[in-house]
Amino acid sequence: MSGKIFHCLKAEQFDRAFLEDICDLADKIREISRTKAGMEYLASILNHKRAMLYFVQPSTRTFLSFYSACQILGIKCAEVRDPKTSSEVKGESEEDTVRTFSLYFDLIIMRHPRANFAEKIAYLLDETDHPVPVINAGSGKDQHPTQALLDIYTLRRSFLHRGGIAQKKIAFVGDLRRGRTVRSLAKLLTLFEEMKLYFVAPAPYQIGDDIIAYLDEHKTAYEITDDFEKVIPEVDAIYMTRLQDEWDKEEGGHVDIDIDRYSFKKRHLDLLKADGIIMHPLPRRTEISTEVDSDPRAAYWRQVRNGMYIRVALIATIFQRDQKILDYYLSNNL
Amino acid sequence: MSGKIFHCLKAEQFDRAFLEDICDLADKIREISRTKAGMEYLASILNHKRAMLYFVQPSTRTFLSFYSACQILGIKCAEVRDPKTSSEVKGESEEDTVRTFSLYFDLIIMRHPRANFAEKIAYLLDETDHPVPVINAGSGKDQHPTQALLDIYTLRRSFLHRGGIAQKKIAFVGDLRRGRTVRSLAKLLTLFEEMKLYFVAPAPYQIGDDIIAYLDEHKTAYEITDDFEKVIPEVDAIYMTRLQDEWDKEEGGHVDIDIDRYSFKKRHLDLLKADGIIMHPLPRRTEISTEVDSDPRAAYWRQVRNGMYIRVALIATIFQRDQKILDYYLSNNL
Amino acid sequence: MSGKIFHCLKAEQFDRAFLEDICDLADKIREISRTKAGMEYLASILNHKRAMLYFVQPSTRTFLSFYSACQILGIKCAEVRDPKTSSEVKGESEEDTVRTFSLYFDLIIMRHPRANFAEKIAYLLDETDHPVPVINAGSGKDQHPTQALLDIYTLRRSFLHRGGIAQKKIAFVGDLRRGRTVRSLAKLLTLFEEMKLYFVAPAPYQIGDDIIAYLDEHKTAYEITDDFEKVIPEVDAIYMTRLQDEWDKEEGGHVDIDIDRYSFKKRHLDLLKADGIIMHPLPRRTEISTEVDSDPRAAYWRQVRNGMYIRVALIATIFQRDQKILDYYLSNNL
Repeated sequence: MSGKIFHCLKAEQFDRAFLEDICDLADKIREISRTKAGMEYLASILNHKRAMLYFVQPSTRTFLSFYSACQILGIKCAEVRDPKTSSEVKGESEEDTVRTFSLYFDLIIMRHPRANFAEKIAYLLDETDHPVPVINAGSGKDQHPTQALLDIYTLRRSFLHRGGIAQKKIAFVGDLRRGRTVRSLAKLLTLFEEMKLYFVAPAPYQIGDDIIAYLDEHKTAYEITDDFEKVIPEVDAIYMTRLQDEWDKEEGGHVDIDIDRYSFKKRHLDLLKADGIIMHPLPRRTEISTEVDSDPRAAYWRQVRNGMYIRVALIATIFQRDQKILDYYLSNNL
Repeated sequence: MSGKIFHCLKAEQFDRAFLEDICDLADKIREISRTKAGMEYLASILNHKRAMLYFVQPSTRTFLSFYSACQILGIKCAEVRDPKTSSEVKGESEEDTVRTFSLYFDLIIMRHPRANFAEKIAYLLDETDHPVPVINAGSGKDQHPTQALLDIYTLRRSFLHRGGIAQKKIAFVGDLRRGRTVRSLAKLLTLFEEMKLYFVAPAPYQIGDDIIAYLDEHKTAYEITDDFEKVIPEVDAIYMTRLQDEWDKEEGGHVDIDIDRYSFKKRHLDLLKADGIIMHPLPRRTEISTEVDSDPRAAYWRQVRNGMYIRVALIATIFQRDQKILDYYLSNNL
Repeated sequence: MSGKIFHCLKAEQFDRAFLEDICDLADKIREISRTKAGMEYLASILNHKRAMLYFVQPSTRTFLSFYSACQILGIKCAEVRDPKTSSEVKGESEEDTVRTFSLYFDLIIMRHPRANFAEKIAYLLDETDHPVPVINAGSGKDQHPTQALLDIYTLRRSFLHRGGIAQKKIAFVGDLRRGRTVRSLAKLLTLFEEMKLYFVAPAPYQIGDDIIAYLDEHKTAYEITDDFEKVIPEVDAIYMTRLQDEWDKEEGGHVDIDIDRYSFKKRHLDLLKADGIIMHPLPRRTEISTEVDSDPRAAYWRQVRNGMYIRVALIATIFQRDQKILDYYLSNNL
């Protein structure tokens, strides 16, 4: 990717080799970060860069994950989160707002309610004298590519001694229609051999036809069902999701479903394989009982931390510092 | 405290030796910070750490004091202040929110309207794989332990040439029932010999019975009165406080009192001892006339700066860097 | 300015020598910043300083420009932007709020709706034991001195091979009555020889009589007109401005004018001199068609970046690091 700006816009842009490389790099970064000297090294890598975090949709987790990733690499951050404090109140177009960011900062990380907005901005900036990389940190109901990366990273770490992600059975449970993390992850899983995906949801919240078409096209097996308890014992990983009812209003009303039937309760631990894992992109409401948290198969807190490290790896890669970090790792006998 | 996480949760956890040590350390840090080289040294101590400032109650002074203290030590900060931008709008529990912080950050500093919330969180985190220190930066009407530390530090500096804090007479004036700073400080003052405390307030805002019981138990003398002008000439320090009417609504209505009777006016300077001091945790409204500001006995602006340095000392101690700083101080002949 | 605090409060405080020096310094800083080593050098200059950005008026561009300038110099920033999270809700005076900042921070950068507020604060702090420099980042309808600096810098760079700013013809177009950037810049342009200024606006938005008196006093030529298209071919620079209708309410109602007559459209490019430039302080609405953006004479995006560098130069000068940077520049053969 040398000579051209590396934007991170959608899950489909990653190939299998990229996924393996970035997970390897995240593992190394994690090791390096265990000492003060290692943290000081990491903070020296991009200490001449500055990033804008433009988050106009509510978010704590993803925002702080990126913020932390930048801090680990020595990147200085600024943020615009509340449109009310911005020039938009004075009637500026959002394109002008973001172009201004590109003149002050070396990297733009954005979460936006509009689908394709990050792509549009990346294209716009590429046409200017001063293009900078854009990372999509979630756009509408559509894409959340770095969430998909952290999920892949979590699966890879969880199945490290079981031959990796290939040939695993993974169930997605809950609001699959509007959960963009499921959409992005499902697409990435087609890159692995002999997967089987289960989509467990009531009919109004089932996975979109576009994803099903994508799986068919990429010859990935799947099953669509509303029977959660039947699926639990069959799978290696269960990916729980939250009812995204913040979209209800826009879509013209709430669909009344029994969300309780799609919740992971303490008794379900008995049904789950001994080496199975439970994931969740968080935030959760009641989809997973807090009684499940202390079970070693509960992987959702580890997911949070994996998200930080994979984002460090991604940003280092965008600025072509991946090889430099691998060299440091080797030369320090880590 | 080695081997165990050091949380700063309530004033009662400090003993006399800790108070003397941390004030000594703050004095040294202050000296070190006078040069660019000294500031660079301080900023190298914890440059591998990152802190979350979780302030869900309005605060400028305490927030910025902690923020500054972290910056001085090289700690990188992130903040969550407005719950509206957070995942709580998506229905996440606050326990999950704070647990997420603990996975990204090495220190959590929190101000919260609920009494005991910081303690609850510290206990919760201690049970996880990834505990981090928690500092209570003010919880409800209950505790504000670092304000008590800075008040102790201010008293110690003010009475440096008068034998220290012991044997002094200190008056607390104003809304003593709801001012958590008075509650925390009064408890700490029982650690010093032969103190006498005066609680000067109209009956509805007098100090709570629990504090009186605490003083009795610790054999500290006190007087309860509503006669402000009679007390002024008797005491070494006057601690003015603000009417905390933001709690009125919750408590079912405002009590109508003549706050003017509990205000320090220019003419009161003539009543005050030549080496007496006037303190205030700030913000103030009209409890102290701005005409008093230029009098050398007005200690409240010095309190603000003392607060920053004592917090630097506290955070350095939490991360066990106190001895390292003392060694630097000695080896540089400061 | 040694021995005395250097506040940046209003455009009138700058003389011609200062303008030339600070533009020179900004050019050097720009060169130095092109490498990682240069950025690391710049970030070492004021790494022992911390700044408060106190912006109680909405602003993205100016805020981020100062924030970036501080980051480039290694200054650690904190911000107060939303008065609702501040102690003002507890009834504190704004003077007390800002005095508190001066006890934590080494520099205060403020944008405020009240005219003269920054000057008042600078005066107040100078009387305390702990004065710090104050930069006015925009006050009311009155002053915006650093915008004037960046405009001067943009004009100087644009006319570098045409003998500099002197003897140029510059048109100001739009809401001249309330646009504080025009007011500040017009005053500074009197420092250059044989200028001619054009004020192009409908009568209700024409430039104030105080500015006209200032030009008369300083013997600077000007023309007042409402005929935009007639002026375009005559001038070297066209400074477009936005209708500042956020003030309408305060002033008792909106004046209905045809703003379209004072907008720069694609067809106007044919009227403009081949080496003329188009400026705008941004944000823009429809005053300049986006079709104009790709013309090399469109200088408004360059203005944004110039603003960042001139602010780096200003802050370095305030802390008397200007000579140090020039020495570095020379000794590195840049």
